[in-house]
Amino acid sequence: MTSLPAGDPVRLLKDLVACPSVTPAEAGVLDVLERALGSIGFAVTRLRFEGDGSYPVDNLFAIRGNGGRRLLFAGHTDVVPPGELANWTSDPFTPREADGKLYGRGAADMKSGIAAFVAAAASIPADAGTVMMAITNDEEADAINGTDKLMAWAEAQQHHFDFAIVGEPSSAAMLGDSIKIGRRGSLSGIITVSGTQGHVAYPDRANNPLPTLARIVTALDTDIDGGTEHFPASNLEVTSIDVGNAVSNVIPASGTIRFNIRYNDLWTPETLSNWVRERIASVDHAGASVTFALAGLPSRSFLSPLSGDVDTLGDAIASVTGRRPEFSTGGGTSDARFIAQYGPVVECGLVGPSMHKADEHIALADLTGLTEIYRAFLVRFFEVQA
Amino acid sequence: MTSLPAGDPVRLLKDLVACPSVTPAEAGVLDVLERALGSIGFAVTRLRFEGDGSYPVDNLFAIRGNGGRRLLFAGHTDVVPPGELANWTSDPFTPREADGKLYGRGAADMKSGIAAFVAAAASIPADAGTVMMAITNDEEADAINGTDKLMAWAEAQQHHFDFAIVGEPSSAAMLGDSIKIGRRGSLSGIITVSGTQGHVAYPDRANNPLPTLARIVTALDTDIDGGTEHFPASNLEVTSIDVGNAVSNVIPASGTIRFNIRYNDLWTPETLSNWVRERIASVDHAGASVTFALAGLPSRSFLSPLSGDVDTLGDAIASVTGRRPEFSTGGGTSDARFIAQYGPVVECGLVGPSMHKADEHIALADLTGLTEIYRAFLVRFFEVQA
Repeated sequence: MTSLPAGDPVRLLKDLVACPSVTPAEAGVLDVLERALGSIGFAVTRLRFEGDGSYPVDNLFAIRGNGGRRLLFAGHTDVVPPGELANWTSDPFTPREADGKLYGRGAADMKSGIAAFVAAAASIPADAGTVMMAITNDEEADAINGTDKLMAWAEAQQHHFDFAIVGEPSSAAMLGDSIKIGRRGSLSGIITVSGTQGHVAYPDRANNPLPTLARIVTALDTDIDGGTEHFPASNLEVTSIDVGNAVSNVIPASGTIRFNIRYNDLWTPETLSNWVRERIASVDHAGASVTFALAGLPSRSFLSPLSGDVDTLGDAIASVTGRRPEFSTGGGTSDARFIAQYGPVVECGLVGPSMHKADEHIALADLTGLTEIYRAFLVRFFEVQA
Repeated sequence: MTSLPAGDPVRLLKDLVACPSVTPAEAGVLDVLERALGSIGFAVTRLRFEGDGSYPVDNLFAIRGNGGRRLLFAGHTDVVPPGELANWTSDPFTPREADGKLYGRGAADMKSGIAAFVAAAASIPADAGTVMMAITNDEEADAINGTDKLMAWAEAQQHHFDFAIVGEPSSAAMLGDSIKIGRRGSLSGIITVSGTQGHVAYPDRANNPLPTLARIVTALDTDIDGGTEHFPASNLEVTSIDVGNAVSNVIPASGTIRFNIRYNDLWTPETLSNWVRERIASVDHAGASVTFALAGLPSRSFLSPLSGDVDTLGDAIASVTGRRPEFSTGGGTSDARFIAQYGPVVECGLVGPSMHKADEHIALADLTGLTEIYRAFLVRFFEVQA
């Protein structure tokens, strides 16, 4: 381990947590990171993206080396709001060490991943190969002016990579027990069912759309598929049904069904939309008219190619923890979906049970362990001589 | 026809319409009525009821005679708001005669019924029997401090009746083609279905209540009964379904179903509530918890005894129109439900297609015809010698 400040992941993590970088406030967090990266030979580019219906976001791209194999590390410095301060034992933006843990908003998600990777990079020779970092300050909210645009920019600059690691908490119960090799896609939709409004005393002069709406909800409540080798079954959840009719003597004109589908690598947004249309068509509409539209942009599912680099990461983890990781595709969506468009990517980071909660924290031993995992991987990936 | 002002239904109707008595504003309308009734021998009591979660309401009780048979006429002087004034040809509270019609808010519902009955009462001897009028200024809105309390007060004063007529528009297409001999009951309820909130990406850690909610809606969408001799089949309409979850990645904790049932004389609110509970219990709740509660006070169904007085009313109508009326129990609820608790009651009034609409109006010939019908009934009911 080097003696440079950047080489001490605990010290760097504390400096990062001390910046209240609630999305999209940069709050100096990228300045802290830029200084640390500069001290270990990275060339840093700061990029502010804006527009497309969202707020401006600060991003950072860093690169060290210009030959050999090319590794990309990606992550985010923004954090979710601390919520009710009364629920915190101490100030969420004043890092606090106690009982072998470090407390603070962002300690787990995911300033620790960044600190561990910087420390690992500090510990290997600068000429081992090409190391790149793509860091955004908006992963937690819109994610419109963040990693998506940062990756497009890097691609335009010819900053290609052979393998990418996203430092999000990926472990399930213990450090290194799981890495994520893909992510399900996510598609949200809204179905509007319209009939004819009228007085409840005269139902023959109206057409209540709600029985048809209920039949559609039931038709959507079915198995989509049986899962694939690396993914669980695709799953639809109806997230809201809304009519908003406050008057008990009026048959309403229409109602809406909102739903979200998390889906595996059997589907694209297009084929899944057709599945939804078929489910809608399978029920008796009883004279009601039914429309279906996507709500927001769907995110595609992806599965990273299971290359030698994934095995190498498994080896590195086993060398530190004594166990090979499970290859998972579970959980929500992440910025890895943007990176997957350009090359193989896995997520490898800490255990995250406290993330987004009050008194967010990590075990300092896990931070050291993750630094060791990243370092062991870098050594193998770049074939650094011991 | 007498020459008293009260004896001219057109003049009295115009005076009543000129008062903007939008519920619960009295706006002088009961003063107009009190003067007319005083001029033909009625003793008038003004009663202001208040409390029970509603606004104060002005009511009027009038009585003439103290022996013989006892007839009660009931109705209301309040009107619904005029709505967008631009939709009216002229001011809704300035009565306008044109093309044999009288225009104005309340012309049909139901100041005309009151004017016709006062004119009919003016035309028969004051000693023919006992004539009572129970008039409220809140039938169109809460109806909490109106006819319900007025009838309880009259009962406490020993103002019993042998037969009651509510002057609401009861005709279907032509004057006198239909009288209402009963009304369906109305019961509103709210069903809350609760599961366990969670993230859509982790459905195994949540329990979505909405598929169960949909199954309950479908279970409620069924025949309740086949109707009875004088009533159509009872009917349930789901009026709203609401979750209010704006976030597409959250499985909601709960949702509500609101419904209204219009029901016939086979049911009471109690037996019908049990029917709802049985329908709820008939579906798989899949771990969700379901609660059912009444929304507001249900109104009971009633069927007036088909006595000689009902036939007499039919005779009186036939003597004016040449046709006997149909006995109907259709339509919404009315204040007759409060009167039915104390004695036989029917609804007999004008044709009401324009009620609650812009340019509300009646045909003057119908106003004269209704006055003749009420007079012909009074003559028969009290056996007045020609």
